[in-house]
Formats: sequence, C-alpha cells, structure tokens
Amino acid sequence: MKVNGRHFRTIWLKEGAGKRAVQIINQQILPHQFEILDLCTVADIVRAIKDMYVRGAGLIGATAAYGMYLAAYEAGEKAFRADIENSARLLKATRPTASNLAWAVDAMLTALDLPGAGLAEKRKTALETAEKIADSDAECCRRIGEHGRGIIEKIAEKKNGEAVNILTHCNAGWLAFVDYGSALSPVYAAFERNIPVHVWVDETRPRNQGASLTAWELAEQGVPHDLIPDNAGGHLMQHGMVDMVITGADRVTRRGDAANKIGTYLKALAARENNVPFYVALPSSTFDFTMLDGVAEIPIEERDAGEVRFISGKTSGGAIETVQICPDKSPARNWGFDVTPARYIMALISERGICEASEEGIGALYSEGNSLNFF
Amino acid sequence: MKVNGRHFRTIWLKEGAGKRAVQIINQQILPHQFEILDLCTVADIVRAIKDMYVRGAGLIGATAAYGMYLAAYEAGEKAFRADIENSARLLKATRPTASNLAWAVDAMLTALDLPGAGLAEKRKTALETAEKIADSDAECCRRIGEHGRGIIEKIAEKKNGEAVNILTHCNAGWLAFVDYGSALSPVYAAFERNIPVHVWVDETRPRNQGASLTAWELAEQGVPHDLIPDNAGGHLMQHGMVDMVITGADRVTRRGDAANKIGTYLKALAARENNVPFYVALPSSTFDFTMLDGVAEIPIEERDAGEVRFISGKTSGGAIETVQICPDKSPARNWGFDVTPARYIMALISERGICEASEEGIGALYSEGNSLNFF
Repeated sequence: MKVNGRHFRTIWLKEGAGKRAVQIINQQILPHQFEILDLCTVADIVRAIKDMYVRGAGLIGATAAYGMYLAAYEAGEKAFRADIENSARLLKATRPTASNLAWAVDAMLTALDLPGAGLAEKRKTALETAEKIADSDAECCRRIGEHGRGIIEKIAEKKNGEAVNILTHCNAGWLAFVDYGSALSPVYAAFERNIPVHVWVDETRPRNQGASLTAWELAEQGVPHDLIPDNAGGHLMQHGMVDMVITGADRVTRRGDAANKIGTYLKALAARENNVPFYVALPSSTFDFTMLDGVAEIPIEERDAGEVRFISGKTSGGAIETVQICPDKSPARNWGFDVTPARYIMALISERGICEASEEGIGALYSEGNSLNFF
Repeated sequence: MKVNGRHFRTIWLKEGAGKRAVQIINQQILPHQFEILDLCTVADIVRAIKDMYVRGAGLIGATAAYGMYLAAYEAGEKAFRADIENSARLLKATRPTASNLAWAVDAMLTALDLPGAGLAEKRKTALETAEKIADSDAECCRRIGEHGRGIIEKIAEKKNGEAVNILTHCNAGWLAFVDYGSALSPVYAAFERNIPVHVWVDETRPRNQGASLTAWELAEQGVPHDLIPDNAGGHLMQHGMVDMVITGADRVTRRGDAANKIGTYLKALAARENNVPFYVALPSSTFDFTMLDGVAEIPIEERDAGEVRFISGKTSGGAIETVQICPDKSPARNWGFDVTPARYIMALISERGICEASEEGIGALYSEGNSLNFF
C-alpha cells in the first residue's frame, strides 16, 4: 500500500555490498513519525517483535520467517541445526500466543531440514522460504479483498452514489500483514474501483490501534474516514449511519466464534440489533479447528494495566509524551480480546471465499479441517 | 462525600467579613489536582459553567442558583428586576441544553418576584432559595441511594459474601450533583452499610469522566473499583463478572427511553444479551414528559472533534499536558450522547422509588405528568 504516494510493504529485504538488513516500518511511533528500521540480527528481530515495532498476525509471522533467514547467516556450518533451533526458540518466545509466529518459524525449520546440503544452499533456501511466506501472506490478503469487495459493491448498488459507510475496530489493515490487510483489504479493493466508501474508525482503546494505525493507513491511501470513540458505534447504527461492519480476527473456532480485539463483541451486538451486517475477514491461518465454543475455550490474555492508565500521543511541540488519565490510587484491568459468538456474524471472508459463520459453512470451504496447510 | 477523609459538597457558600464567595471544586483538573475555586461574581459563575469547572445536571442547576444569589447583590435597587433578568439570560446561555440550569434560574426569578420588598429581603430570599435548590438536589440523590441500595442488597444476598460487581459508565456520582450522586448514590449507600461492592469504571471516552471523576470519587471514599476501557464491558458480562449495570441519564422520556453519555446503549445491549440487570438512576427533574420515543425525539448534540483527537493527562513530571492520538490528516466525529430504548432497562430509580421503564410504570409514580414540580 502507499505511504506518501510511494508503494510499501510492511517488511522487505535490503541486500547489497555485503550487508543484509530486514527493513520494517516502526509501528510504535506511527502515526506521528514514519521511520524505517534496519533489523540486521536475530536479536534485532526478537526485539522488534517483543517491543511491538511490528505487530499483527501476518506481519509477525513474516518477520519471524525473515528472522530465521538471518539465523541461517548467524549459524555456524557445523552446528547449523542446533544454532537455528536456538534462534527458533528465541523467536517463538517473543509473543507466545501468536500462532502465526510459531507456524512460520516451524515452516522455516522444516524447509531448512536439508541434510547434506551446504551452507550456501541452506541460506538460499532460507531466503526463498521467507519470501514465500511473506508473498503468500500478501496474496491471501489480496484475495480477501477481492472476495469482500463484492459485498461492498452490492451495498453500493442500493445507495445511489452515496458512500458505503463501513465501521471497523482495531487495525486489521496492511500494517498488520505484509500488504493489503484483512478487514481493510475489501475497503481498499472497493476504493480502487471507485466505489464510494467512508470508514468509521473505532479508536480502539486502550492501545488506540484504530486512531494511530487504521486512521493513518486510510489517510495515506486517501480513503475518506472519520475517527470515532469506541462508544459511538451503537448510536451510529441506531441512526442508519453504518451500512456494514468488518473486523479482523485473532482466532476463529470451527463453528465461527471469533476472538478479536476487546470491544468487537459490543459492535457485533449493536449490528445485529440494528440489522447491520457484521463481517469477519481472516486468512485461513486464523482458524483453529481444534476449538468449537469460542467463549468457553479461547483463552483471553490479560495485559498490563498501564495500557489503560496511560496514553501516549504527540504534544503541541511535536514530542511524543505519555500521560496518566486516572487517579494515582485507581487500579485498572485490561483484557486484550473478546469473543463474538458466530450467531452475530453475517459471514466470514477468507482468501478462499465467503462462508457462513457455522460449522457447516466453514466445513464446506475447509473440507480438510484440522489438516489444513496454509502454505 | 469525602475528599481526603473530610466531608465536602460540590458547591457551598463562604461568607464573612463583607466578602461572599461561592466555592466549588475545580473539576477540570481532577483527578490530578484538588483545587477549590472562589466564584465572587455572576461573571465568575458564567465562566465556571461554560468552561466546565462544574458539570453535571444537578450541580449546574445549583451553581446557576447561587449565581442568581450573587446577581441579587450586583443588581441595583431601582433596576433590580431588569438587572437580575439580565443575569438570568447570561446564566441560561452558558449551556443551552442543560434543562436543570434553566429550571433553577427560573425558580430563582419566581422566588425573587417580590414587588414591594426591599433589597435586603430580596437578597435573603435569594440565599434561602439557592440553598433550598442545593439541599433539594442533595436530598433527591440521598433518596435515590436508599432506593437503589435495596437492589444491591438483594444481589448481595445471593453472593455469599463476595462483592457485588457493578458496572457504571461516565460520572453520575456526587461530583455531578451537590452530593451523593445518582448512579453512584446506591453504591455509596450499600458501601456504608458494609455490603461488599466492587465497581467497574468505564473510562468513558472521549472526555474520560469515568477515569478522571468516577475513579477519583470511588478512590476517595475507599470503594473498591477498577478502571476499564469502554470496550471491556461486553467481555466482562459474557463471563459473569458483572452483577448489575447502573448509569445516570441526561433525559428520560415518558416511556422510559434514556439519553445518557455516548456508549451507554452498547452496555445496555450487552447487559440484556447476558441477563445482567441494567438500571438508570435519575432525579425526577431528568424526566421529559413531552417526549415519548427517545431515539426519534431526543436531540443528540455533536461536540468538538478535538475531544476525540486529543487527550489530557498528567506527565511523569506532574504537569498536565494534552497529546494528539491520531494522524494530523484524520478528521473525527463526536456525538455526546446516545439513547437506550426503555426495553433494555430493567428499572428506573428516582427519589420517589423504583419503577418499570414504561409509560405505565412511570405514570404510576408520576401521576401529575407534565405538571411535575420538582421543588
């Protein structure tokens, strides 16, 4: 997608003159500053994932894959396998609940299982595999956009040239993946075809991914949007100001219950109550076919209370500053996700197509079930 | 209620040695600083209301009443009526949609309609009337607390000594009135009787009245509480972590549709979906018997987008600083209130008692309807 009119992915490799760097956009300081970081070692990659310079399932997976590529350069010829397995452990430990991360690291380990191959061949395979993982992530997202665009088009047909109002929560845009995004990919695909769209951007407290990342993405592509407090969506839907809701997901069970950023469930309730269709967009890798009942089974991570008690932003002088918004004496609690039961979801949109959020609907699109291979 | 262990109201009169000051707590800089301000002129009162040093229906009304008392000192003997009517106009213009404000100013004008009375008598009447308005506001809230306490007690009976978990949105505590509050008054009444309670405090974006005012009130009284993002309530209710929701209201129609701070409706939806009782606490003056259908009839004010784009808080150095949380290019929208239809409300709690949120329920408690006199 575009930044300042120039095409970018969220991660890419820069090589030359004996130097090799994985380059990323520093998402920690967006939207206030646009900075590209060079990650030259496995340790750099570990820090970038842990400190959330990169975030989002797809991007974390691709970053870890490139991390394993760097690991193939750091590994010695003799102890190659032991060395890359050690790097794999370090990478997996950065965000223990990110299933895409573990998957990408394991995919790299499998590809690098080349007994008898020389160091050069192993490194070449590492590069090819990392790029295949990144390309495959981008391609998945592009296809989600194509499938989802059809839904927006159909709504647009009934609006007589007025913009289709789409509400989204958190950031499931290209910044969370290698390119395009999940929830925002259909929006970009529609916008590119000149379908008039307007996005209501939930700010997404406490980490404000909507205000800082989704709003920034949309602004850079030129997509009309308005930032709103997370509290506003119910009122908007009650008054016919939302035509559809689309969010990403962190994990979706085999019957379609969807864990996503905390607050998603409240929007799903308001959508059903006001007959607004609610969609969840996801790459197939987000399905967890081992689980059925999302509310009962999906573990919900509780995060640091400081994320609620403090907010960062840009001062009038342009500096980035953190402020405390509550009394010194008041504690806070901070659950990262909530689960939207399948019955509130109109449909799921994956790179394979659109399906009902039900065991039957998902089963028809994913007949291989548990043995799903995303790659 | 208590601040630092000492009893306070939100407004009181300090007189002596020829000086007369209306004293208030500066709510603009809470929770970071506790400051008492002297308002000595009508102009001071106007500024305090307009710039939100005081806020909340009950407190705005009482402040305006004390403003009319100061007006009776500023008015000349000959042009007394014209002078106080001029002050009345200035006061009413500060927050045009605050119905309590207009009501309090008109009550003062009526009380001061004393043809033939001397200046001293008029001033004495002004003081008595202003104090009666303030006392009556506090007494209403105290009674709401008594009625609501019974609801909390009944839930406590089933909890075997565990705390009753009460979720509230925005600030409908003593800071919004002269004392006690509406939604928080039952909590304080229960806490005083040693019923174990714990409050989930919605931070209430964009102005953060929960994080800054409700959390501060509860901390000062020693009531156990946790600050949560507005996004969290659905997850908590889904997992049985909320026993009841109680909020205040800005306007309630004769069938019980309740306008309150934006986001209230989303909590009401989650409450009904998860069988959590949702209560609205209000003094009778909040009823608008001229309206039936809240969603269709109650005008919803759109406020400055800056409230969404910027947040204030305390820096690590202790200064109060404002930071921007979104891209420079991203616009925002900011509706102040939403309407919760009566069907989501378990009951209304006013100083008269508890009634069903329906035309019949309200009619039974308020048989005088339109001719209701709050004073």
